Amino acid sequence: MINVIDGGVTAPKGFKAAGVACGLKNNGKKDLAVVCSDDIAVATGVFTTNLVKGHSLQLTMNHIKKGYAQSIVINSGNANACIGGQGNKDALEIAELTAQLLQCNAENVLVGSTGVIGIPLDMSKIRSGIKTSIANLSAEGGHEACEAIMTTDLVPKEIAVEIEIQGKKIRIGGMAKGSGMIHPNMATMIGVITTDANISHNLLDKALKEVVGYTFNRVSVDGDTSVCDMVLILANGKAGNEGISEEDMEYRNFKSALEHVCTYLARMIAKDGEGATKLIEVKADGAATPDDAYKVVSAVAKSPLVKTAIFGEDANWGRIITAAGYSGADFDPTLVDIYIGDLMVCQNGCALKFDEDKAKEILKEKEVTILINLKKGNYSDRIWTCDFSYDYVKINGSYRS
Amino acid sequence: MINVIDGGVTAPKGFKAAGVACGLKNNGKKDLAVVCSDDIAVATGVFTTNLVKGHSLQLTMNHIKKGYAQSIVINSGNANACIGGQGNKDALEIAELTAQLLQCNAENVLVGSTGVIGIPLDMSKIRSGIKTSIANLSAEGGHEACEAIMTTDLVPKEIAVEIEIQGKKIRIGGMAKGSGMIHPNMATMIGVITTDANISHNLLDKALKEVVGYTFNRVSVDGDTSVCDMVLILANGKAGNEGISEEDMEYRNFKSALEHVCTYLARMIAKDGEGATKLIEVKADGAATPDDAYKVVSAVAKSPLVKTAIFGEDANWGRIITAAGYSGADFDPTLVDIYIGDLMVCQNGCALKFDEDKAKEILKEKEVTILINLKKGNYSDRIWTCDFSYDYVKINGSYRS
Repeated sequence: MINVIDGGVTAPKGFKAAGVACGLKNNGKKDLAVVCSDDIAVATGVFTTNLVKGHSLQLTMNHIKKGYAQSIVINSGNANACIGGQGNKDALEIAELTAQLLQCNAENVLVGSTGVIGIPLDMSKIRSGIKTSIANLSAEGGHEACEAIMTTDLVPKEIAVEIEIQGKKIRIGGMAKGSGMIHPNMATMIGVITTDANISHNLLDKALKEVVGYTFNRVSVDGDTSVCDMVLILANGKAGNEGISEEDMEYRNFKSALEHVCTYLARMIAKDGEGATKLIEVKADGAATPDDAYKVVSAVAKSPLVKTAIFGEDANWGRIITAAGYSGADFDPTLVDIYIGDLMVCQNGCALKFDEDKAKEILKEKEVTILINLKKGNYSDRIWTCDFSYDYVKINGSYRS
Repeated sequence: MINVIDGGVTAPKGFKAAGVACGLKNNGKKDLAVVCSDDIAVATGVFTTNLVKGHSLQLTMNHIKKGYAQSIVINSGNANACIGGQGNKDALEIAELTAQLLQCNAENVLVGSTGVIGIPLDMSKIRSGIKTSIANLSAEGGHEACEAIMTTDLVPKEIAVEIEIQGKKIRIGGMAKGSGMIHPNMATMIGVITTDANISHNLLDKALKEVVGYTFNRVSVDGDTSVCDMVLILANGKAGNEGISEEDMEYRNFKSALEHVCTYLARMIAKDGEGATKLIEVKADGAATPDDAYKVVSAVAKSPLVKTAIFGEDANWGRIITAAGYSGADFDPTLVDIYIGDLMVCQNGCALKFDEDKAKEILKEKEVTILINLKKGNYSDRIWTCDFSYDYVKINGSYRS
């Protein structure tokens, strides 16, 4: 039984956070977040597979290796990437200054930066931001931290849930930013998850990696990622449960709750895609292999032609079968059924006379499901994306300016 | 010495063409083209690799197998795809009616259809279109045929060249339509090339496949294609040259002229991309393998973030290195140099202080070159694409309506 409760990363016991505007963003909005646990927490993360890696992200990958952390500092407005040696120094200074103020070890501080690539961080602003944030840390600060990691996001994305494990109420809170990644490869997302559960590092790591695989890595696609992407989780054990150390029912319950958090945040990211007017869920059924199912949903969800058609509320299923056809998946085109919502629009690879008014009605909704049934095997996959509108071009045509 | 001359597919000797409006397009524009050779010609083609294949295309793949053809009929406004048995019957009827009127064998007629998928062809319109076209065939009809194959193309795309081979002047003419394929996988293109050269089927086939590989298959990317894509070539030998039957200098001259034709048409397709305001040439140098070079240019040319930045005339090279980083190519990010035009904007993977005014000036041009030097090996590749504007969304949001 998973209860959704108010709040985000500070909903679990023993976590404080703050978010401040230190001047990295020109518009005066919050741009620096600190999240910290009262004590050292078990920690793990999932990081970009991009060959190019931001300097802050590299430091975090290094610090998290030992499996513990206490604090996370994230700035928005400016990525710390492709700067050379100065970028590494800046990331380290952020960790050291935070550690000094929190009286912890710099190795227990994780750092994230997101925004424009190739411009050095303005460290005088960052320093003052860290000081103000830490002075303002509070158990009610989750929402402000969530606002401070936003870039082109229109809405803050946070959630908290509560479940009972080993006779104790444990909580998981999360926040994420995602600039939309209309194109999957551009998933410039950062996610921070906190929990007061007592859980072994091995199982926390396993649960996070599995859950991210079918939530955050199924937003628009691919697992291809930007140079600053990361999802971090801290578990501080303050809930007082005995400890999750085996893959038993308690572990599965924890993982379900984590999945709930990540699914919610992942869907929020797709829904808040740059310029998006609709959330699109693309499903494949009946694939011969898991890889075929993935290839189909991935190609359909990436296709700008499919996404512009959905924006135009046009049931142009020809573009859907075309994308499936070039996806590289193996299937028989003459077996394929396609549904938009619950309306079948293509049967056995052929046009169907369907009710265009009903299709229009389905496409007018804020959430649209596309199902491609390959009728060839037993594997499925699904992915979340969004439609493609004028505003995507507007937002991305002048991002640096 | 390749001379560009006036005209298109009817510039070579012994070819006639016509293009008419038979009512498939609502706007009264031309929508049916016939190209034919006075006598049977050596013929070959390159076809979509999409698993889903249009009915007209399937018939053409079948007819061209024996290596000869005399006539090509192409309609725009409506693809003949995903219709089932009726689609095959309609394609065959087009070939049979054309053959009857031209007094040739139906197997020597090739058929192409391009437009909306899943709607049966209006055969009464097509029949009358074929009759009118054939009644109007002329050696000056190349341009009208070119207009009749356009879909969302803004400009007709045709070219003709003349070279001397074996003491005779031979000509190659070509026309193409391409709806833009801002995304490579959507390359809904059709190309028709004619020549009066006398050349063996083997060498014609070899030349076409090689040249298409680095021209039409390097527009926006991939060789991934729509369900109706094809490039056809007819060689009728009317120039009277002795015959190209070996891979000698004469063959290489012919291939160079063919490359000139295909390069011109391919660049025209990228330039006329839906909503495009600029032609972008993306080059990779210094790759360790040809595949790495291809992956880099392909990822950069596909990236909507790169393409919107170029539309916004914003030298956002961070998006270029990001796309290279997730392309799957193997390289060392700390070696990478990036140029926009002749302006270096990133050196050894790091930000450079470059002249933003100069960058703006380069990006204001109608043609922009991006060069990524990986400095790891000796392989190069290049691809043509276009920028991504508001109009792309407008054109594709309501294509069926």
